[in-house]
Amino acid sequence: MKVIILGGDGFCGWPTSLHLSNLGHDVLIVDNLSRRNIDNELEAHSLTPIAPMGSRLKAWKEVSGKDIRFFNFNVAKDYDRLLKLIETERPDAVVHFAEQRAAPYSMKSPKHKRYTVDNNLNATHNLLCAVVESGLDIHIVHLGTMGVYGYGTAGMKIPEGYLDVEVVTDTGERLMQQILYPTNPGSVYHMTKTQDQLFFAYYNKNDGVRVTDLHQGIVWGTNTSETMADERLINRFDYDGDYGTVLNRFLMQAAVGYPLTVHGTGGQTRAFIHIQDTVRCIQLALENPPQPGERVKILNQMTETHRVRDLAKMIAELTGAEIARVSNPRKEAPENDLHVRNDLFLDLGLNPTTLSEGLLAEVSDIARKYAHRADLDKVPCTSTWTSEQKAGVPQKVR
Amino acid sequence: MKVIILGGDGFCGWPTSLHLSNLGHDVLIVDNLSRRNIDNELEAHSLTPIAPMGSRLKAWKEVSGKDIRFFNFNVAKDYDRLLKLIETERPDAVVHFAEQRAAPYSMKSPKHKRYTVDNNLNATHNLLCAVVESGLDIHIVHLGTMGVYGYGTAGMKIPEGYLDVEVVTDTGERLMQQILYPTNPGSVYHMTKTQDQLFFAYYNKNDGVRVTDLHQGIVWGTNTSETMADERLINRFDYDGDYGTVLNRFLMQAAVGYPLTVHGTGGQTRAFIHIQDTVRCIQLALENPPQPGERVKILNQMTETHRVRDLAKMIAELTGAEIARVSNPRKEAPENDLHVRNDLFLDLGLNPTTLSEGLLAEVSDIARKYAHRADLDKVPCTSTWTSEQKAGVPQKVR
Repeated sequence: MKVIILGGDGFCGWPTSLHLSNLGHDVLIVDNLSRRNIDNELEAHSLTPIAPMGSRLKAWKEVSGKDIRFFNFNVAKDYDRLLKLIETERPDAVVHFAEQRAAPYSMKSPKHKRYTVDNNLNATHNLLCAVVESGLDIHIVHLGTMGVYGYGTAGMKIPEGYLDVEVVTDTGERLMQQILYPTNPGSVYHMTKTQDQLFFAYYNKNDGVRVTDLHQGIVWGTNTSETMADERLINRFDYDGDYGTVLNRFLMQAAVGYPLTVHGTGGQTRAFIHIQDTVRCIQLALENPPQPGERVKILNQMTETHRVRDLAKMIAELTGAEIARVSNPRKEAPENDLHVRNDLFLDLGLNPTTLSEGLLAEVSDIARKYAHRADLDKVPCTSTWTSEQKAGVPQKVR
Repeated sequence: MKVIILGGDGFCGWPTSLHLSNLGHDVLIVDNLSRRNIDNELEAHSLTPIAPMGSRLKAWKEVSGKDIRFFNFNVAKDYDRLLKLIETERPDAVVHFAEQRAAPYSMKSPKHKRYTVDNNLNATHNLLCAVVESGLDIHIVHLGTMGVYGYGTAGMKIPEGYLDVEVVTDTGERLMQQILYPTNPGSVYHMTKTQDQLFFAYYNKNDGVRVTDLHQGIVWGTNTSETMADERLINRFDYDGDYGTVLNRFLMQAAVGYPLTVHGTGGQTRAFIHIQDTVRCIQLALENPPQPGERVKILNQMTETHRVRDLAKMIAELTGAEIARVSNPRKEAPENDLHVRNDLFLDLGLNPTTLSEGLLAEVSDIARKYAHRADLDKVPCTSTWTSEQKAGVPQKVR
C-alpha cells in the first residue's frame, strides 16, 4: 500500500518509515524537521549521531534498494501543500506523528505551551480536513498517548479507549452506555491529545473518516532491525531533561556514571513499549483498518507497566549506577497504580520485546558506545509544571 | 469590579458590555471586529442598523455618563497585547466571547472549518496562558453552548456539565464517579467548544484558574434595556443563512412575507434564551464566582425548549406567515427530545423572559421596523454538513 508518514523524521516516525518500506509499501515522508530545530533551540542533541534526511534516504536506498520520498513542509501551517500531496498521491493510509511530543517541553513557558497547542491541534485538524476535501477513503493512524487516561484508575484495568458506564434516567431506569474514556491529561502536551480525540470522533461521525488512534506508552530502546542495517540509519536517542523519556535517560546516566535521577518518590507507574514493538504495532494497525462506518478504533500500544523507582533499581543492579532523588517537576500524585488492557494488539499477534531481555543490549550497544557524545548539563529537567515549583538538583539517596 | 469583555462588539458581547457598565463596573472591550468583517465576506448585514464602535461608545457616554474603553486586536493571534492588557489593567474577571459562533459558517468550506478551529482554540488557550502568566487570580467566564451535549439524551434531563456514572472495577466493585458530560457536538463550531472544556479542566487542575463555563442555548431577541436607550446602541439582528439563528430568522421572514423556512421535519428540539436573560446570567455568573480551588463551574444558560416546527407554527399564527420546508443542511437525527436542567441560574434569581411574552414585541419593534433593510437572497442556508448534501430550495407545505 501507499503510506504517507507525517513526522517521518522523528524518533518513532523514522523507524516506522523504514519498517513499512522494508515490507514493500510505498512510503512518503512529510516532515518540517521541527524536532531537529528544537534540538538547536535547547542546545541539546541526540546521543546517537543521526544523519541528515538526505543521507538517511541515500543509505536506505543502498541497503534495501528501496526509495522513500521526502517532502519538507509544516502540516500545521501549509494546508494547501498537504491537500495537494494527498490528492496527487492518493495514499491508502496516513500515519500521523506530526505533533510536539514532550510533556516537559510543552510546560517550559507560555511560548512553548502555545506552540504545542497551535501546532498539534492545527496539524491534526488540517489532516482531517484534507482527507475529507480530497474525497478519498484514507485510513488515518494517529499516535496518541496513554497519558489521555490520566493515572488514577480506580482499581480498574484501563480499557482500550471506551468505557462502559451506567447512567440513571429521570424515571429511575438504568441505562448502559459506552463512552469515550473520560480524560485526565497531565500536561499541555497530553491535553492536546485529548482534544485530538474529539477531532477524530467528530470527523468519523460527520464524514465517515476511518481512524485508528494508538494510545502509546513510553517508548524505550533506540534501534529496530532496519535502523541497525547501516550507521547512517541510526535512530535518535534523547537524554535531555525535556525530550529524554525516563528509561532512556536512566540508561545514558548509567553509561556515563551519572546518578539515575528519580523525580519525587519514583512511585509513578508508567506503561512502556520497545521501539521495535512500536513499528510492529503500526504495521498491525495499517493491516487491520476499521471497516467503513466503524467508529474510531482505539488500541493501547504498550506492553508492560513499571514503577519508576523499580526501573531505576533494575538498571542500578545491571550497571552499578547510583540513584539520586530530585524534586518532581510535574504536578501529579506521588504514587499511582496502573493496570492496562492491551488485548487488541496481542490478539493481532504482537509478541512483545520485554525490558528484561532488551535492557542490557541498550546499555552496551547504545548508551556506552555513544557516551562520549553526552552533554551532562542537559540531563536535569528544568521545565516545571507551575511557577511555584523549582527545578531539582540531584541528591544522592544511597 | 473591572471586567474585560473579549468579543465585546458581537451579538452577546455588546449588550453584556453595556449591562455591566450600567451596573457600575469598569468595562473594557477587546474585539478585532471579525464579526463585521465576516458580514463583508458573506455580503450580508444585520437587519438592524448597528453603529460603528466609536459611535456606540460615544452614544453610551452621552446616555449613561460612563466610559467603556475599546482595544482592537485579535485575541487568537496577538498574545503579547492580551498579556500586557491583563498585566496593566489587572481585571477581576474576563468574559470570553471571542470565538466564531455560527455552526453553518464553520461547515461552509475547509477554509471556514480551519478558521473556526484555529481562531476558537487559540483564543481560549491564549486567554488561559495569559491569566497564568500574569500571576493574577482572575475569574474567567466563558460562553459555551448547549450543543456540547449533543441532542440524544437517553430519557434523562441534561445535567449542568457533570454526569454521575457507575463503573465496575475488575473485582466487580461498583464505583460512582462524576465525569464531564460526554460530548457529542453537531458541527465543527460545537466541536471547538467541547475542546474548550478540556482547556478549562486542565488549567483549572494544574494552575487553579477559576472558570465559569456557560452552556448557552439559542439566543433570541435583539435589545436589552441598555441597547434600547439610543438607536446608536442598537444590537445586531442576524437573519442570513449562516448567522441567523432559527427564531430570529422566522421573525424576519414573517415580517417581510417570506415563508418560514423549516429545515427537514422541524422535529429538532432546541433550548432558547432571550438576550436580556443572557446579560443577566453573565452578571449572575460574575457575582457568584467559583471559590479558590473549586473545579470549573458549569451552568446551563437557557430558559425553555421548543421543537422547531412548533416555533414556526407559533409565529405563523401570530403573523399569518406561511411555513415552507427545506432540506436539512445538518447531519443530525430528524427528531429529538431535549430536557435540560437550569436550576443553578434559577436558584441565583434568574426570572426568565418567556417566548410567549416577548415574541410580539420582536415582530413589531424590530422585524417589521427594519424589514426594508432585508436582503432576501441571504436567507437560505447554503452551507451543508457533508458534500453529499445539497442546499435547500423552499417548498411551501400549506
